Amino acid sequence: MNVKLILKTLGKVLLIEAAYMLLSLLVGLYYGESPLPFAPPILAMLAAAAALSRLRPRATVFNAREGLVGVALIWLAMSLFGALPFAINGGFGSPIDCFFESVSGFTTTGASILPAVEQLPRGILFWRSSTHWLGGMGVLVLVLALFPSIGERAQNLMAAESPGPTSEKLTPRISTSSKILYGIYMGLTVTQILCLLLTGMNWFDAVVNTFATAGTGGFSVLNASIAGYHSAAAEWIITVFMLLYGVNFTVFFLLLTRQFKRVARNSELIVYLSVAGGATLVIAASLYARCHSVGLALRHAAFNTVSIMTTTGFVSADYDTWPELCKLILVVLMIVGASAGSTGGGMKCSRLIILCKSITREIRRMVSPKRVSVLRLDGRPLPEATVTNTAVFAMLYFLIAIGSMLLVAMDNFDFTTNVTAVLACLGNVGPALGAVAGPTGNYAAFSGFSKLVLSVCMLVGRLEIYPMLALVLPATWKNASLKK
Amino acid sequence: MNVKLILKTLGKVLLIEAAYMLLSLLVGLYYGESPLPFAPPILAMLAAAAALSRLRPRATVFNAREGLVGVALIWLAMSLFGALPFAINGGFGSPIDCFFESVSGFTTTGASILPAVEQLPRGILFWRSSTHWLGGMGVLVLVLALFPSIGERAQNLMAAESPGPTSEKLTPRISTSSKILYGIYMGLTVTQILCLLLTGMNWFDAVVNTFATAGTGGFSVLNASIAGYHSAAAEWIITVFMLLYGVNFTVFFLLLTRQFKRVARNSELIVYLSVAGGATLVIAASLYARCHSVGLALRHAAFNTVSIMTTTGFVSADYDTWPELCKLILVVLMIVGASAGSTGGGMKCSRLIILCKSITREIRRMVSPKRVSVLRLDGRPLPEATVTNTAVFAMLYFLIAIGSMLLVAMDNFDFTTNVTAVLACLGNVGPALGAVAGPTGNYAAFSGFSKLVLSVCMLVGRLEIYPMLALVLPATWKNASLKK
Repeated sequence: MNVKLILKTLGKVLLIEAAYMLLSLLVGLYYGESPLPFAPPILAMLAAAAALSRLRPRATVFNAREGLVGVALIWLAMSLFGALPFAINGGFGSPIDCFFESVSGFTTTGASILPAVEQLPRGILFWRSSTHWLGGMGVLVLVLALFPSIGERAQNLMAAESPGPTSEKLTPRISTSSKILYGIYMGLTVTQILCLLLTGMNWFDAVVNTFATAGTGGFSVLNASIAGYHSAAAEWIITVFMLLYGVNFTVFFLLLTRQFKRVARNSELIVYLSVAGGATLVIAASLYARCHSVGLALRHAAFNTVSIMTTTGFVSADYDTWPELCKLILVVLMIVGASAGSTGGGMKCSRLIILCKSITREIRRMVSPKRVSVLRLDGRPLPEATVTNTAVFAMLYFLIAIGSMLLVAMDNFDFTTNVTAVLACLGNVGPALGAVAGPTGNYAAFSGFSKLVLSVCMLVGRLEIYPMLALVLPATWKNASLKK
Repeated sequence: MNVKLILKTLGKVLLIEAAYMLLSLLVGLYYGESPLPFAPPILAMLAAAAALSRLRPRATVFNAREGLVGVALIWLAMSLFGALPFAINGGFGSPIDCFFESVSGFTTTGASILPAVEQLPRGILFWRSSTHWLGGMGVLVLVLALFPSIGERAQNLMAAESPGPTSEKLTPRISTSSKILYGIYMGLTVTQILCLLLTGMNWFDAVVNTFATAGTGGFSVLNASIAGYHSAAAEWIITVFMLLYGVNFTVFFLLLTRQFKRVARNSELIVYLSVAGGATLVIAASLYARCHSVGLALRHAAFNTVSIMTTTGFVSADYDTWPELCKLILVVLMIVGASAGSTGGGMKCSRLIILCKSITREIRRMVSPKRVSVLRLDGRPLPEATVTNTAVFAMLYFLIAIGSMLLVAMDNFDFTTNVTAVLACLGNVGPALGAVAGPTGNYAAFSGFSKLVLSVCMLVGRLEIYPMLALVLPATWKNASLKK
């Protein structure tokens, strides 16, 4: 394990985070607020970045191990520094609460320990929401875009941070790919801000809500979340953009390069849109009895379905009072999640497709044991390693979920809260079911221990298990050295 | 698909079921009750058996397909005939309710739609509990013991009915193995009856409670289940026997043939006992605060932990009022289940061991991609087919659970009920959590549709998914013919 190389990369990340935090400081200054919550962490990060930039690792190759552990460590450090403004500003409770909120931001979960947000300084709110934007596409993707010469085989870094079982290469050069991804991301972000401004939303709210949509995060600057704007237009715009950010960004690249046939055949896109559409229709039908308006039922169903499935976690209605079938569909969508290579979380539609295909193959084998067949996805053969890896991922996902539920259950909240809070954090959704962690509740009531468990769940979910697992595995640390 | 061969086997099963039902008729007569609930179904089964025995299948080979579909069809037919005494006697609600109760009996689930059982005729209660005994070890295992010449490769029948990923052969001849299994089963059953009689329990109760223990079923003849006897001795005896019936019966065979070393190295036995012991200790510690007695806390914890983990479903305390951690542990144990090759349900400890081993291997591969390794269980290499099959089984288990939860949620009971009722039926446990399907409730409140869904869950759980799946798969029915 080449610890020096990882630390050097961490230096670059802290540099980016410091520059990024400066933005929130400036927003605060613009609103006449004190720069105090931001200045010390920015200086600390700059100092650390300067110190780490002096490291000269002898080997500069990122092996799979360095990729996994590096990403895990960097995300932990980034979250810790990101929590400092909350801690210095105050109003966020204990240090664990600040860490929880920061992890929730970067992992684009959007679970909050704040019962009320509206009285917080603008700069702090801006920082809180902007962590979603950086965490959504990934900070290491940005590092690779800005510092292409960071090391060899840096795709191991990107693979460990980017969600999904298959990390398709947009272009042969990884730094070019990163730039394209951030370009698309930026384009969508600007478009959404403009659309929200057209609905009459003010600049500040348009920007922070767009940050929270883009990263599929879900932090809001109103206590009532998006419901607080009472604007059908804003709700529909956010619905459409949530849906877009949950699409594999490769699809946008294919559209930009006019490869329409490949888009039309993309099975993950088809499944993603079908599940979102199907769930919306079922929920809208269930809600019609109480709304007595097709439009309203559809709007509530579409917004909250897409919000949960893309793991954003915005709320436009108290779905905790909806029929049980609707609530259960939402919980299932928390597990399903968005697409691979999107900013959304959960298990990802492509993994579900691979799982279903391997299940079907296994059943066919049961009935006719002599058949041998290779699985294919979008016309190309799926490597058996990917199939096995996906199955193991699914099992680990459930095992980690069950283990976390047992730990959180020590707080003695009800079964629904224990189960759905863990699923909502692991899937990077945010709001769960029930009075405690549901759409009208918040995570403040959990014990410090549970908040740490849930923070780990968020990181495990965002980084898709393996980096966090590699971090705690003794095998990883064999031959770890600062001398390389 | 050789339908004739399957029907001929069904004939033998109905013959056995008729003879077995005669026992309940005699018990009823002994207590001066009418033979009416039993006479018509017995005659119907004898007539059907006679008609089916005239079939002369040209091919007598049980392929994998015939094994799977045969077992599924036979269990459905057996449950339908088994429901007739309930329907004729009355007091069981609708025909769907009778079917539910019968499926619950044969699959050794023990979920009941009866709010009160004590006023039912003795013969009916005897029949209800004796279905557990037959379903526990399996009716096809009995067919193979009694009619060894039923067909070639009949191990495909036995494999489809016997629980567990690895069906170890006790002896080279399958009919001998079946006889040994039923011999051990009978021996344990008689021993338990004698032990319960020693506690002062009457003959009838000792026999029916033993039937329910032996099959890890859980139907009781008291409304308060085992708690109604107010006997610590009876509770401890049942605890020990539940634990024994949840052990892989191969272990008893090894003990009888003095292969003690192989028993001591049996990893499933070690995991099974460790999980049961660990869960008991954690729950006992949580209960101590309210019991103020180590003995009582341990007794309640041990009985209900072992009852749920072996998927028996007897109740000695209202665990729905226990701390949330205890309840969640019980729900997790519903999924874990007992050992392969036992009469218990759930996913089985050996599957968990295989899953954990394959997960560990995959993680090792992540960190050091070049490593290749073969998994081993109890010193012997595990075939890759078994590893894949186990992973697929686990995923199917969760997929079927989630699908069933969505269907049951249409009844609009709460989240806890939907989730745990499905897990309790799929794991063949019986009682779930919550007021509706919990330890003090029953399944009567569910709609007819949900009862059918839960009945399918019970069959899917008892037959371990594949037979029921093969039944509905179009591929199975290609080339199906009555002419072979």
